[in-house]
Amino acid sequence: MVSASKQTDPKTLYDVVGIGNAIVDVISHEDEEFLNAHNLIKDSMALIDTDTAVSLYNEMSPTVQSSGGSAANTMSGVASLGGKAAYIGKIRDDHLGEFFAHDINAGGVHFEVKPASEGLPTARSMIIVTPDGSRTMNTYLGISTNLTKEDLDVHLLENAKILYCEGYIWDIETTKDTIRSAIAIAKGANRTISFTLSDSFCVSRHKDEWIGLINEQVDILFGNEDEIKELSGCGTLSEAAQWIQGKVKVACLTLAERGSIIVTEDEIIGVGAKAVNQVTDSTGAGDLYASGFLFGYARGLDLKICGELASIAAAEIITHTGARPLTPLKNLLESEFRN
Amino acid sequence: MVSASKQTDPKTLYDVVGIGNAIVDVISHEDEEFLNAHNLIKDSMALIDTDTAVSLYNEMSPTVQSSGGSAANTMSGVASLGGKAAYIGKIRDDHLGEFFAHDINAGGVHFEVKPASEGLPTARSMIIVTPDGSRTMNTYLGISTNLTKEDLDVHLLENAKILYCEGYIWDIETTKDTIRSAIAIAKGANRTISFTLSDSFCVSRHKDEWIGLINEQVDILFGNEDEIKELSGCGTLSEAAQWIQGKVKVACLTLAERGSIIVTEDEIIGVGAKAVNQVTDSTGAGDLYASGFLFGYARGLDLKICGELASIAAAEIITHTGARPLTPLKNLLESEFRN
Repeated sequence: MVSASKQTDPKTLYDVVGIGNAIVDVISHEDEEFLNAHNLIKDSMALIDTDTAVSLYNEMSPTVQSSGGSAANTMSGVASLGGKAAYIGKIRDDHLGEFFAHDINAGGVHFEVKPASEGLPTARSMIIVTPDGSRTMNTYLGISTNLTKEDLDVHLLENAKILYCEGYIWDIETTKDTIRSAIAIAKGANRTISFTLSDSFCVSRHKDEWIGLINEQVDILFGNEDEIKELSGCGTLSEAAQWIQGKVKVACLTLAERGSIIVTEDEIIGVGAKAVNQVTDSTGAGDLYASGFLFGYARGLDLKICGELASIAAAEIITHTGARPLTPLKNLLESEFRN
Repeated sequence: MVSASKQTDPKTLYDVVGIGNAIVDVISHEDEEFLNAHNLIKDSMALIDTDTAVSLYNEMSPTVQSSGGSAANTMSGVASLGGKAAYIGKIRDDHLGEFFAHDINAGGVHFEVKPASEGLPTARSMIIVTPDGSRTMNTYLGISTNLTKEDLDVHLLENAKILYCEGYIWDIETTKDTIRSAIAIAKGANRTISFTLSDSFCVSRHKDEWIGLINEQVDILFGNEDEIKELSGCGTLSEAAQWIQGKVKVACLTLAERGSIIVTEDEIIGVGAKAVNQVTDSTGAGDLYASGFLFGYARGLDLKICGELASIAAAEIITHTGARPLTPLKNLLESEFRN
């Protein structure tokens, strides 16, 4: 059912292993009108088919291609902070697949899932960035939907302090089963399970199932204001925060420029956002927030410090186009904590 | 020998048609030590073979892929400023070729050269950006070396006010012959010929031939300080400026943060650089300078104004990774000239 590890060093203990859709981002900057003209819902993620992918691409301005995928971005951030990170996701043996594999490995993340030699192409997300820095994602999942239990590395899952799961992966039956197996393996080795709600529309598609999952299996939950409101059915952030309190050990609720709140069983900790001159592209802000928090948590740091690491990582990513750090985040930490 | 146009609108008069190596940039940010460790000469362009391309790519940090190619960047800039631009360069029918074609067309540039269905892959340049924003380019020319006279669109060359030629293309006999034909066609239609020196090492490879070409055929010359010194053999900028004076109608000599000087037959006009907060990636600075100047020149503007348009276009490109504008340059012009 799941393969024994051939690649991971038996002595290595990872900080985090992430599992998600392996995606290359195809990013363009457009006016607000572009969203209206193409019926795109700002700041959300929509799944699209091949025809829509082709026609949307043809309409887009000149693009930048940058490796993406929510959990992959988060693992790249953990590695960039100096942590030991690994990733599980499915690519094809095509140009975009090679590009994805290069970038995640070059970022210092352990990634050894065998590329598919047939079937759909590597996944891509057409991301429209508007002048306020908001990103609207249109994802063609391609071969990422074929991540099976055979792609899971049991030794890796048993030897990472934290498993990080992407909500996005829930949209496909095969990958949902795969992620359930991954959680079971990690739980069996007494590891911490973390989960991100990913997108409010994704939450609405899987709400009931996720509430059960979160209650029973998840230790650390990530979500933004819209997502936690959608999940809880609460109208305000404070009601939603109370609703989640006690259901998980820690819930990190991100609030864009207002920072974040970290909800534990007995307290709520506020964390400020780090100021930036200009938000160029918010793609990856939530992903990198999770990088900072998970890195700190895996290293046993105080939750408030974990939140500050999260804010620093998120601030770097929104100052440029693309969802992978342009400078090693550990260098940023050094200069932040020196000041 | 050269094909008649099938695509261009017979009534269209283009501002500029550019001819050059059609390249996709593969960009990473690295420390200065990376350059030393790989014997790379900072701020220059080196031609590399397939093996070096593969081994260098494997050593690079996570990358961003962005369409490039010097003349292609310049034409994208002309279109972004609101000008009518066209481009001639050779791609393969592979992923990078499609990416290149999408971006240049999406940027509003007329580009209809048929992709090769066999032979080498689309060209790519591995660009190492160091913390000071300098870029060091390592180019695998691939199929771009196969641009032949059959790829020239006579009608297009006869109906663009200015032909813009890349010095880089001189490195290959086939493409050199192609560019000589293009110049002859444009000259025959009484069009303006512009040429960029591209790179000081490229100048040193073709110096004697270029001095002849520039004297006899070129109206507008672009080059930076190193390039014009290499071409002229002069030790100082002012000597080099005097040397070029009268050899061409206009020479634009770019001086990075010191701006540029525009040398005509009877005067030298100084143009300031536009200040930017931080130079993120200088890739494309010279290319976009040429965009601004050529757009202004084609529209009959005063040379000083042409230089200012050039400075504005160059300033936009160095504030982000990649050599194509992220925002329409004509919007920048409107806000610049409103203030």
